[in-house]
Amino acid sequence: MVENRLDMTFHALADPTRRGMLASLALGEKSIGELASPFDMSFAGASKHVKVLEEAGLIARRKIGRTHVIRIEAKPLEEAERWLRQWEKFWSGRLDRLEALLEADKQKEKRND
Amino acid sequence: MVENRLDMTFHALADPTRRGMLASLALGEKSIGELASPFDMSFAGASKHVKVLEEAGLIARRKIGRTHVIRIEAKPLEEAERWLRQWEKFWSGRLDRLEALLEADKQKEKRND
Repeated sequence: MVENRLDMTFHALADPTRRGMLASLALGEKSIGELASPFDMSFAGASKHVKVLEEAGLIARRKIGRTHVIRIEAKPLEEAERWLRQWEKFWSGRLDRLEALLEADKQKEKRND
Repeated sequence: MVENRLDMTFHALADPTRRGMLASLALGEKSIGELASPFDMSFAGASKHVKVLEEAGLIARRKIGRTHVIRIEAKPLEEAERWLRQWEKFWSGRLDRLEALLEADKQKEKRND
């Protein structure tokens, strides 16, 4: 289930328009028309992107009269961030430093033998 | 360029086999055959996944004789993690608490008017 959710989250994020929509929603709730406007995009085009974001659980919508108002849902973003953070040791260089320390220790032991 | 890189990174991560391959590479360099084996997958099938990871810059390969040896490249993972971390305020609830504080302040001011 979480595997599948990560698939959907990463798929939804693999598009600059959808990432832009999330950035726009970070400033507050928006209608689909408001989400479409910075991208010079039709309502139908924007609706498709909104649907992908919605299926991934990255947004939620409520109806006010005939308008769908969209808000961000952060839980899947948090899960994706947590998944990525497990690789932190590879980019922070901590692993390299640890390996260097272990190597230095080994060399020291050898000299003391 | 980074936009495009994020597209490719998130696309590469939107697949459980490719995420599994990265997990396997976290333990050390692997040949394509070694990467394929836990997934009961043909060499050709694994090669396709490796190619997607490679195009996203998530892995690098070197040849030892006729064997391609694959290692993880963490930089794009770091960029994706940094992109996701900008939403942290939405899941940590800090924004809600800030808004609650501002609202409480406003109410206090009103009472003091």
